[in-house]
Amino acid sequence: MNVVVAQSGGPTAVINASLLGVYRQARLWDKVDVVYGSLNGIEGILNDRLVNLNEQLDTDEQQKLLRQTPSAALRSCRYKLPTAEKAPEVYEQIRATLEKHDIGAFFYIGGNDSMDTVDKLSAYFASVDSPIRVMGVPKTIDNDLCLMDHTPGYGSAAKFVATSMWEMIRDCTVYELDSVLIVEIMGRDTGWLTASAALPRLFGCDAPHLVYLPEVEFTADRFIKDVQQAQKKSRTVIVAVSEGVELDSLENYQSGKVDNFGHKYLSGVGKCLEELVRERIGCKVRSVELNILQRCAAHIASETDLTEAESLGAVSVKAAAQGHTGMVSAIVSRNTQDYIPSYGIVPVCDVANKIKYVPREWINEAGNDVLPAALEYIRPLIIGEPNILTENGLARHFIIKE
Amino acid sequence: MNVVVAQSGGPTAVINASLLGVYRQARLWDKVDVVYGSLNGIEGILNDRLVNLNEQLDTDEQQKLLRQTPSAALRSCRYKLPTAEKAPEVYEQIRATLEKHDIGAFFYIGGNDSMDTVDKLSAYFASVDSPIRVMGVPKTIDNDLCLMDHTPGYGSAAKFVATSMWEMIRDCTVYELDSVLIVEIMGRDTGWLTASAALPRLFGCDAPHLVYLPEVEFTADRFIKDVQQAQKKSRTVIVAVSEGVELDSLENYQSGKVDNFGHKYLSGVGKCLEELVRERIGCKVRSVELNILQRCAAHIASETDLTEAESLGAVSVKAAAQGHTGMVSAIVSRNTQDYIPSYGIVPVCDVANKIKYVPREWINEAGNDVLPAALEYIRPLIIGEPNILTENGLARHFIIKE
Repeated sequence: MNVVVAQSGGPTAVINASLLGVYRQARLWDKVDVVYGSLNGIEGILNDRLVNLNEQLDTDEQQKLLRQTPSAALRSCRYKLPTAEKAPEVYEQIRATLEKHDIGAFFYIGGNDSMDTVDKLSAYFASVDSPIRVMGVPKTIDNDLCLMDHTPGYGSAAKFVATSMWEMIRDCTVYELDSVLIVEIMGRDTGWLTASAALPRLFGCDAPHLVYLPEVEFTADRFIKDVQQAQKKSRTVIVAVSEGVELDSLENYQSGKVDNFGHKYLSGVGKCLEELVRERIGCKVRSVELNILQRCAAHIASETDLTEAESLGAVSVKAAAQGHTGMVSAIVSRNTQDYIPSYGIVPVCDVANKIKYVPREWINEAGNDVLPAALEYIRPLIIGEPNILTENGLARHFIIKE
Repeated sequence: MNVVVAQSGGPTAVINASLLGVYRQARLWDKVDVVYGSLNGIEGILNDRLVNLNEQLDTDEQQKLLRQTPSAALRSCRYKLPTAEKAPEVYEQIRATLEKHDIGAFFYIGGNDSMDTVDKLSAYFASVDSPIRVMGVPKTIDNDLCLMDHTPGYGSAAKFVATSMWEMIRDCTVYELDSVLIVEIMGRDTGWLTASAALPRLFGCDAPHLVYLPEVEFTADRFIKDVQQAQKKSRTVIVAVSEGVELDSLENYQSGKVDNFGHKYLSGVGKCLEELVRERIGCKVRSVELNILQRCAAHIASETDLTEAESLGAVSVKAAAQGHTGMVSAIVSRNTQDYIPSYGIVPVCDVANKIKYVPREWINEAGNDVLPAALEYIRPLIIGEPNILTENGLARHFIIKE
């Protein structure tokens, strides 16, 4: 019997650590001969583009390089699987490829949308009495999957955001003039990643002075008042804002395009607020969009996150070996006192297409800052620096051969 | 006798390593009692805001923290010193503060504009027969100072740019669709930093496919043709572009504001080209502005750069001890075979207000790429990773006490 693994959705710094975890554990599974990788997520199975990972991840060095390489080594897709009722031929095609390669289990590393695929496929295989197991491995910098304490990819993104914020605080506080810095942070629906921008507070730092999450209402008037209030205490006011904050009057600045899953493409909240400060306050103002850097900055990945991502890949394989299907591995809870994560599996149908928000009680009453409880939650997730193999002053990356 | 040191201009990841170099060497100078730091550059001398660095840089730990802290620990200024003819009172005030604190030498760590201050002040003190020596220590991520092989700050910024580009190449090549990524890189007049975006080529990587420096003419038509040509070979086309490229038709997108030195504030070349691709080609396109991150990313500083920055601080102090004034320390040349930098001092009047451009022969004939000679020049400057003291998963920073 063989198994196949694929990656999907937006890149993270640790999605390849999960791939490594799946690979290593699958090689320990006595029933498994070949671990295949499907290129471009589920599309690789539809198009029969599988690569033999046994040949490419044979050595310790290859495995170490894979672990330190950001983004999806097996590439990704944004393919939305139709329902089995609407497109039975798609399911039959997937089944045909898997049976052709004697695949007993399929592992899908991805976020919310990928979990939807795991849910549909596992239900389909059960409905046709196929023994093929389908398991999810969680991944998202957004940290918005339900039934989990946190998701792999989040800790590393948070470490990049917090590090960048900490460095920009140094950068922006050197001049003797009134200025505002606005930092726009990813997070389609939730403010988990934006909250991490407040981690410099752990050093007793006042900045960032304002933190806006999409979980609470946002208005232009209130924003300007908040900035003016903050300026009374600090000549440099630093603002962290989620790309997902909603405000009618900001919509003109946003592209309004929609992707395959119906998500709106967001851009320009930071630029929009920059213009607002320029018009309404008139001081020096700059906006910085952390953009895709925050999801692929493997050079500053969290070792905690890398280790957990790898472990979760292994947990899914172990569960499949025990006969589970339609489940996703998860860090289900933690021992808060000394941060010991508990691993487990949860039903993918309870994860897919659901969103976990930042608790309202972690946000201050005014809705313009996060409270210490949020920082205590994030802090352990960004701990540790990986030991990175370099060449020419740059990290070496693993590149898949097709 | 005492000495004073100040920092000026835009932040870098290693300007504090130069401060440390000045401090350590000045403490070894037998005639010196106190090393003062002037807050906010020359403004701190005008306003008599000096801090005793002996008290704050006493321990190995304080010195190590200073070295790993980005941006100017003594803060900065953008103050343009008027000529002594126009404003003799300013010079007299500076002299009064320095004499009040028994200052025998003033060290100014900065870029082109700060060297102008060193030039004017040293000429003034010579003209009034004052024994006060004024020495420059070079610093600029732009790498555009004349008479130098390269400048401290450049190597670390180049390492951040190259690392980010290398990671974004991974990020952007995972989907099976035609797309363009445009990365906008700092460099007011010169393309040194933008050239570093091509360092992933050292791994045999095709990307970035196009590299535009301000040293050559840039036209929208040519850019679109270049992208279309590149799309024939690669579905993902990655472009590195300097903020300083000049094109009349792009001017509407740029702010056109001017700073104290008459430099235009540049912004939005990347966004502008993004719009151009969207209108004229119509594929998926994204622009990323590396923004201030590239000048303060101490977490990925080049150890080579840190070491050289520190050494240059020491070189200026040694030269002052030998009686020099109106000079700036410099890495004047290198042994190219095994990269051994040669340190020296050069007359500041030959450095101030002059610009060193990327040689035309390091740019391809079409003006849309850099040649291997450029990469060979940059490669040794980004080598080495500093050992960083962390707490809570973040680098610890040195904060000056006033």
